[in-house]
Amino acid sequence: MDRETASRTNDHQALRLWLRLLTCTQLIEREVRARLRQRFDTTLPRFDLMSQLWRYPEGLKMNELSRHLMVTGGNVTGIVDPLEAEGLVERTPEPEDRRAHRVRLTRAGRKAFAEMARAHEEWIVELLAGLSRKEHAEVYKLLGRIKQATLEAQS
Amino acid sequence: MDRETASRTNDHQALRLWLRLLTCTQLIEREVRARLRQRFDTTLPRFDLMSQLWRYPEGLKMNELSRHLMVTGGNVTGIVDPLEAEGLVERTPEPEDRRAHRVRLTRAGRKAFAEMARAHEEWIVELLAGLSRKEHAEVYKLLGRIKQATLEAQS
Repeated sequence: MDRETASRTNDHQALRLWLRLLTCTQLIEREVRARLRQRFDTTLPRFDLMSQLWRYPEGLKMNELSRHLMVTGGNVTGIVDPLEAEGLVERTPEPEDRRAHRVRLTRAGRKAFAEMARAHEEWIVELLAGLSRKEHAEVYKLLGRIKQATLEAQS
Repeated sequence: MDRETASRTNDHQALRLWLRLLTCTQLIEREVRARLRQRFDTTLPRFDLMSQLWRYPEGLKMNELSRHLMVTGGNVTGIVDPLEAEGLVERTPEPEDRRAHRVRLTRAGRKAFAEMARAHEEWIVELLAGLSRKEHAEVYKLLGRIKQATLEAQS
């Protein structure tokens, strides 16, 4: 194989891998969205926001929540307001800044999220069940290298 | 390891793998968006739409374009109109349906897309360069199994 052909083959291989990575992510995400809607009448941005709050029992400020959720693209106020109306989150005053407040899960919010998180984990286990334990570990390791390379390449 | 511990370990392994898959996809996509903006002053939905049209030289109907772009979530009319104003795509009447029309790349559009596609491919090769050829093939194969399992699990 001459150099140009080899290079083009490598190019296509990378592109094909990227498209498959994208497809897998989109398929799983779409399925998770559908199941969150069907089973819990909720959305992925709501689930993600509650998941963030779950990790910070003392609550998060609105701008911290925005930063965490940047990728999902959800509008934080538009998610927090209905959750508050449903009694799943509450706003508490921020001691160090009178104009600010924190958002945290209520007891009902923690209970609701725990149930969703359990189901979510079962779905992911099911959706990834095509791979053996060893293969899981293998993909995890190789994706770690992709993650690292991408972080280093960031412009 | 007792059965419950083993099961919980598998669960966490699947969840960790899913989060890493998501992170990799988001990192690469974010980098591609940033470079498309910096280098070509364009967006991912525009690039994706032109990429679809590239594969169909005879053009696509608006509803076909919508279906293709579902995942990106772009608003087709909102993307096509500016591209048409810039002379990169054109609308042509649909012979079999007088109310419909097709959208296709103009000669200038093909030229512009070819340049972007070449750069895009180079970026992907660069971002995935952390893996050897053999590892590329390995991840590709294992992701194929995940894709298959997800398609089968779809509710």
